[in-house]
Amino acid sequence: MTIEREAGQPPVWQNDTPEGQAPVLEGQDWAAWPVYDSATLGLRDYWYPVDWVDRFGRKPRPVRILGEDIVLVREGDEIYALHDRCPHRGVPLSHGRRQFPDTVSCAYHGWTFDLKSGNLCAVLTDGPDSPICGKLKVRTYPVAQRLGLVWVYIGAGPVPPVERDIPDELLDNDFAMGGRSDVRNGNWRFAAENGFDEGHAKYLHNTALWRLFKVMPAWNKTRLQQEGPWLVRVQDELHWEADYPGLGVWTNKRWWKRMPLPDRPGKGKRVNKVIDALDIPGFVSIRLPGLLRVAYPQFIHYEWYVPVDEDHVRYVQIMVRFERGLTGVAFKAKYLAGIRWLFHGQFTGQDAWMVDVTDAPPERLYRPDLSITGWRRMVERSKPVVQTRPQRAKAE
Amino acid sequence: MTIEREAGQPPVWQNDTPEGQAPVLEGQDWAAWPVYDSATLGLRDYWYPVDWVDRFGRKPRPVRILGEDIVLVREGDEIYALHDRCPHRGVPLSHGRRQFPDTVSCAYHGWTFDLKSGNLCAVLTDGPDSPICGKLKVRTYPVAQRLGLVWVYIGAGPVPPVERDIPDELLDNDFAMGGRSDVRNGNWRFAAENGFDEGHAKYLHNTALWRLFKVMPAWNKTRLQQEGPWLVRVQDELHWEADYPGLGVWTNKRWWKRMPLPDRPGKGKRVNKVIDALDIPGFVSIRLPGLLRVAYPQFIHYEWYVPVDEDHVRYVQIMVRFERGLTGVAFKAKYLAGIRWLFHGQFTGQDAWMVDVTDAPPERLYRPDLSITGWRRMVERSKPVVQTRPQRAKAE
Amino acid sequence: MTIEREAGQPPVWQNDTPEGQAPVLEGQDWAAWPVYDSATLGLRDYWYPVDWVDRFGRKPRPVRILGEDIVLVREGDEIYALHDRCPHRGVPLSHGRRQFPDTVSCAYHGWTFDLKSGNLCAVLTDGPDSPICGKLKVRTYPVAQRLGLVWVYIGAGPVPPVERDIPDELLDNDFAMGGRSDVRNGNWRFAAENGFDEGHAKYLHNTALWRLFKVMPAWNKTRLQQEGPWLVRVQDELHWEADYPGLGVWTNKRWWKRMPLPDRPGKGKRVNKVIDALDIPGFVSIRLPGLLRVAYPQFIHYEWYVPVDEDHVRYVQIMVRFERGLTGVAFKAKYLAGIRWLFHGQFTGQDAWMVDVTDAPPERLYRPDLSITGWRRMVERSKPVVQTRPQRAKAE
Repeated sequence: MTIEREAGQPPVWQNDTPEGQAPVLEGQDWAAWPVYDSATLGLRDYWYPVDWVDRFGRKPRPVRILGEDIVLVREGDEIYALHDRCPHRGVPLSHGRRQFPDTVSCAYHGWTFDLKSGNLCAVLTDGPDSPICGKLKVRTYPVAQRLGLVWVYIGAGPVPPVERDIPDELLDNDFAMGGRSDVRNGNWRFAAENGFDEGHAKYLHNTALWRLFKVMPAWNKTRLQQEGPWLVRVQDELHWEADYPGLGVWTNKRWWKRMPLPDRPGKGKRVNKVIDALDIPGFVSIRLPGLLRVAYPQFIHYEWYVPVDEDHVRYVQIMVRFERGLTGVAFKAKYLAGIRWLFHGQFTGQDAWMVDVTDAPPERLYRPDLSITGWRRMVERSKPVVQTRPQRAKAE
Repeated sequence: MTIEREAGQPPVWQNDTPEGQAPVLEGQDWAAWPVYDSATLGLRDYWYPVDWVDRFGRKPRPVRILGEDIVLVREGDEIYALHDRCPHRGVPLSHGRRQFPDTVSCAYHGWTFDLKSGNLCAVLTDGPDSPICGKLKVRTYPVAQRLGLVWVYIGAGPVPPVERDIPDELLDNDFAMGGRSDVRNGNWRFAAENGFDEGHAKYLHNTALWRLFKVMPAWNKTRLQQEGPWLVRVQDELHWEADYPGLGVWTNKRWWKRMPLPDRPGKGKRVNKVIDALDIPGFVSIRLPGLLRVAYPQFIHYEWYVPVDEDHVRYVQIMVRFERGLTGVAFKAKYLAGIRWLFHGQFTGQDAWMVDVTDAPPERLYRPDLSITGWRRMVERSKPVVQTRPQRAKAE
Repeated sequence: MTIEREAGQPPVWQNDTPEGQAPVLEGQDWAAWPVYDSATLGLRDYWYPVDWVDRFGRKPRPVRILGEDIVLVREGDEIYALHDRCPHRGVPLSHGRRQFPDTVSCAYHGWTFDLKSGNLCAVLTDGPDSPICGKLKVRTYPVAQRLGLVWVYIGAGPVPPVERDIPDELLDNDFAMGGRSDVRNGNWRFAAENGFDEGHAKYLHNTALWRLFKVMPAWNKTRLQQEGPWLVRVQDELHWEADYPGLGVWTNKRWWKRMPLPDRPGKGKRVNKVIDALDIPGFVSIRLPGLLRVAYPQFIHYEWYVPVDEDHVRYVQIMVRFERGLTGVAFKAKYLAGIRWLFHGQFTGQDAWMVDVTDAPPERLYRPDLSITGWRRMVERSKPVVQTRPQRAKAE
């Protein structure tokens, strides 16, 4: 469906607003998005990728997601997640020892917790008959392993399968992939808005080396379309350069590249049949709780924005080619030799720079910010459970 | 006029207060100076020197003055100042690019602002017909270039000529000069008070190398006199050393220097005729919004205290000799070889140290603090427009 | 006396709580200890060790105790302590100069204070007849030198002799000693609780090198007993290892050491007669305002927790052997060669690590925390004068 004005909803612009119309997007006042405005720490009831599976070992490792401190511990092939705080005196369990299999012991007094249930199963410094054993537990988190990543579910109530929060095409097909996972400065919402943002890539990334290989229009006319869980940016009109009166010409053309690049994946010369079958109506799409998909003709880039705390966000980026065998191996090599540095490094590093220095609200939106208000509205309409700051211990 | 007690005004001491009189200056309670007390960020409606002209190029450079973030950009011989915040998403324009002459473009989405007017004159990622163009602007600041410095006017209403805020003698005469410009720790008011402070130089700077060449009394009796915009410290009585009962002798004499140093410039052996013509009744004077003048027989030191934020102040220091030709060249050499390091470096570095560690109010003032309360009163009486913290965007 | 439940008092567990009893110590809600809860900055009306005597010279040196900024200055054999703030403009006197004997002069304007009385006895930049002289003073603190340490009394009213706050055995006997004094992270109460804590040493310090030489039970049953100013942990039952059902055996046995170590000092093979005479009923004891005593058969470790501010505590540690002559010299050598690094370094460094990461309340206490609640109750019952944040000057 095309997003249009609805009763009681903040309207969004069609990108082809006729001249003379008020140039200010109404939804730019964040008061229009009260839930989104309050979601500085992210959205609950979703699975989040935390980091690569092989970065977790027997030694407890702390991570922070949505402001919650979590300790992850491996036992054999399983990875367990517990609240990273011993209830005794508040010492992080990530400082703890692996005294017995399937348990973690707090470094301070040897309070020993079952990894699976979180139950206090032994208190080494109180003897085998310790009356507190079995009487308390630490919170545990559902954990899954998919795509080489560890996923943690932050939420209450029945736990959905992790597959619900992973794009179907990554579950249904074979592929080769490479990826990066880094914590960067800035709030996760600015990261998500930046990712889906129609306008910035054309100017900000104009200087990125990646753009030696991938051309991009100077500006275009856009509308949004919902496809299942995805909100898709559809480009109706492409302009590769423009003459600004009194200023001069600004261009995104590259003389060594052929223009225009097909907007819809699958319309290029050599086509990947999985991507073709997806039939995504646009180049870029986004879904909750913060996953961007950029579909190139031959491969797809996915980028998760995982809230760490109010001021930090983890970028989990993967580049996927739906091929096996030699083609897959070649892609993996190409990823390590180039894409990893050019795209997942410098290119999205420019994004991270902007996410860090964005300082809104207040803000004044313009036509292409249709994508931002569309995303905000999608979040708002989903009636998400907003993460609140975990209640801190009484201040010392 | 000599400053005396007036009805409804906080009284200040004459420095020759007879023994037995209350030893506490009444004006030491900052409640006596409510406007001054609130002026942590400085005074509006003045021109402020920002930095040397040659430190600004085509590349946008951010500065902070009176708590305002400003970006300065050169185009040819002109330097322009704009509020350092793109109204779109709050990204600093100082990260921007010089896409077209006479404009600056925000690095994020290519919002392009006219340097002179601040008008949004193009939005590169929205095409030449962007409906938001011409509909908004960023705040601009009046800029001037004088004395090799860039000056910015912080204020509202009609803009006075920059000459109003520059001492006449620097406008009417030729001279040779050298200078330094550094941001230092501490509030600008402590810097100004320290500069005009009667007492500290005699003790604090006793260890400065500069004092090998310039003697200073151990203590003296002082009054204040207003001369045009200047408040002048007049020394009526000089003491080069004193015997403190039960403790011993403390002296500022130097056996290799002749005492006393003439208090009034122009009474020395070789006299500069410009300085002589000024006929300043004292060695040190101060004026709003925070400019100190120290008149030596042969040259004059000027020192501006430009508020950066509550805790930082820019010291712009120049040493001026009103001579041209070979004498001027020789002075410039002398400045670079010595004065720059001895006076503008170590000597005023001692001041900066104290400004940094001053922790008042509360305070207990003493006789020589006549100079401090006189300065505070001059500020208070000028009914200045106090800078308030620029309203911040709603916290993320 | 054995600590038992009393009317109106928070009850504490006997360590031999029968199975089935509520496993949660009632006193774990800090609301039960309102005075202790508020004592983040420590307790007034006590002498505190500040640092080694030989670390203070003629040059003024700042220290912070209980959140108060104090400057210490030596004159001959005497050490003086004054509030580290010149009342004139708030500059720390620790930046000052020693212009005349028995005085310190503020670096800024030469305000000169008598070290003994704190009286303003000269103002060098206001002449010998300065009317403010003798009209004000800075606060002074009682100072003593004992055990090679400088002690400062923080409190009001009549000053008790420093001997009141030093263990008798250290006043009545000769001894050899070594020691360390360091500021560490964390609140002083967590440091004190950690020190007297029954349970942690058995597990946390299991990996300390010190434990190659000194064995410790795996768990034990404990009660508390008051002996004069000391609260003593008495161990009624010792277990050197235990089998935890479903998990395995955890042991603190060392095959090269003989078990059990005598719980009461004086029961070992070679016995120190001073320690024997003390007849302490347990290994570890604590007293106000925060002094731990660990009595080994041959030597005693003392550890003061001196509040620096809310988040820092000074550990003053000494190890004492009540011998003179060659035995004393040999002990001093043994201290420097080993104990200093093994015990006062790595071992108590593990404590400092935990004190730093403890995050309580909330907390869930267990049987061995009898020692913690006993200590809290002793503090609460002593009706101490709690240090409050020194009133700050009006914010600039």
